[in-house]
Amino acid sequence: MSERNAQWRLAARPVGLPKPSDWEYREEPAPEPGEGEFRVKLEYLSLDPAMRGWMNEGRSYVPPVGIGEVMRAGGIGRVTDSRHPEYEVGALVSGMFGAQRYAVSDGRGARLLDTALAPAPVHLGLLGMTGLTAYFGLLDIGRPQPGQTVVVSGAAGAVGSVVGQIARLKGCRTIGIAGGPEKCQWLVDELGFDAAIDYKRGELRAELRRHAPDGVDVYFDNVGGETLDEVLRRIARGARVVICGAISQYNATQPHGPANYMQLLVERASMTGFLVFDYAERYPEAIAELAQWLQAGELQSREDVVRGDLDQFPEVLLRLFRGENTGKLILKLADST
Amino acid sequence: MSERNAQWRLAARPVGLPKPSDWEYREEPAPEPGEGEFRVKLEYLSLDPAMRGWMNEGRSYVPPVGIGEVMRAGGIGRVTDSRHPEYEVGALVSGMFGAQRYAVSDGRGARLLDTALAPAPVHLGLLGMTGLTAYFGLLDIGRPQPGQTVVVSGAAGAVGSVVGQIARLKGCRTIGIAGGPEKCQWLVDELGFDAAIDYKRGELRAELRRHAPDGVDVYFDNVGGETLDEVLRRIARGARVVICGAISQYNATQPHGPANYMQLLVERASMTGFLVFDYAERYPEAIAELAQWLQAGELQSREDVVRGDLDQFPEVLLRLFRGENTGKLILKLADST
Repeated sequence: MSERNAQWRLAARPVGLPKPSDWEYREEPAPEPGEGEFRVKLEYLSLDPAMRGWMNEGRSYVPPVGIGEVMRAGGIGRVTDSRHPEYEVGALVSGMFGAQRYAVSDGRGARLLDTALAPAPVHLGLLGMTGLTAYFGLLDIGRPQPGQTVVVSGAAGAVGSVVGQIARLKGCRTIGIAGGPEKCQWLVDELGFDAAIDYKRGELRAELRRHAPDGVDVYFDNVGGETLDEVLRRIARGARVVICGAISQYNATQPHGPANYMQLLVERASMTGFLVFDYAERYPEAIAELAQWLQAGELQSREDVVRGDLDQFPEVLLRLFRGENTGKLILKLADST
Repeated sequence: MSERNAQWRLAARPVGLPKPSDWEYREEPAPEPGEGEFRVKLEYLSLDPAMRGWMNEGRSYVPPVGIGEVMRAGGIGRVTDSRHPEYEVGALVSGMFGAQRYAVSDGRGARLLDTALAPAPVHLGLLGMTGLTAYFGLLDIGRPQPGQTVVVSGAAGAVGSVVGQIARLKGCRTIGIAGGPEKCQWLVDELGFDAAIDYKRGELRAELRRHAPDGVDVYFDNVGGETLDEVLRRIARGARVVICGAISQYNATQPHGPANYMQLLVERASMTGFLVFDYAERYPEAIAELAQWLQAGELQSREDVVRGDLDQFPEVLLRLFRGENTGKLILKLADST
């Protein structure tokens, strides 16, 4: 075979927002699957805020992407060659295939997609890591009770939009924090949030007071920074703050800690971090429930699919940090099926 | 009767460290107990870091001390007059009697002291709110397991010195953070800590790496600020960070939030605030256990008793914020028994 691979490799550790010189675009022969392996041609790339963290040096929950290595990325590909009994040529598979056109896998961390259940991009969103992150973070760490007030930041993002919808399904008063009137209107009108706060208006404190007069029982934080500080001011007795992300801080050279964290003491509250990978054994039950909600029309999945090609990957990634996406940001590669 | 009362009232809300003009010293006739009440003459005043927070305006776990009100303070007094069946003249009683010479109480929040069990000051320390705070914060929130590494800051302070000793009793590797070589030596030589780190040497990061090579499973935080940030860098998977206080921040006009809080996510850890008052129903069992450990010589109680008089209260309070006390800081009033 003579297919050419194309890849985005990390050229340098970014300071602040990743810039073109932090990347290297490389073409080389596509890899061949060995015994027990298969090869996919990527059709969709998942763009995730966590990617920014993977580019940094230092101890984290996964090793950093090494300088010169292919950028870590989730995606969906179609099997083009297989020496693996479970992955047949033509099947659609999701996995951590990297920011490249072709990848070889032995199946670890990969999953065959049931496109009868939902179109491929949904398997990166609601039925993928995004939906699973929302599901376990909210239900296992946040533990919302009916009638309680749940606030989620990054509410129009991939995870946030699912968190709010699950909270609503669980009978909670659901408040989203997002940037811009269009996103806020979408949260309320389309996703059924009880309220949405446009943080860009600069009235977060007053709006939280207005929409959460009895305090916030569960706060699902995707953004960190001042937003976390403002919500901490309003947490209710025994509140659970779920630390899922801190997109406002990922490109900060001087990270901002939550100065109001002593509200945890005042209100006997907790702030807990989690990683969806720890729930791998329970993925099937969660996906089944999410799929059931989706098919019953109780949950909506929204993917923000950019039709382009692999060369646009670094630029599309930046949309996340500019808050330009609504729902799950996905790059669809040009000659996909 | 014609006893004269003397009181410290709050004159102004301090900015930074309380200064003399924030206080008013007032003399007035001592109060008379009504039906169902008793009067005490104070013998010991408890000096607690939390007092600084009570002087601030704004929402907290107790209402702020009002301008013109007697400063809130725990203490021990002897009953001088009683119209309450359970509190006889001559009995020693602990309670929130305020920073004054005489107080009247209906018994709510008060407790008769058993001085056969331990001398009066111990009932403000190990067998008082101090010991209870250490007990419930460490055991209920920190949940240390034998063999785990427990770090406590403010380790030579009232609460910290008890936390470390209980952790040691529970079979944990116990590391204290304190200021100065004398305190550190005391922690290791007298209280049986496995290690003590003198934060004033400026090598907290390296020392934590050295003494907690496998990470910190439980961090009991009394100081906040940079210390909290440094320990967060080294938390172990699933660690519990217990937020008990933040003495480094109480007088800060620009509080410092823990910039490394995202380690909670990396390590799937939690940071939880608590207040000892929530455990009131379980005080008797805790005091019984603490007293048993004390009598068996398994726990030491250390009180830093300043012999003076009520007029010194504002000055003695500042010792806490200068880190001058070792163990429980208590002001013993001049003509006490």
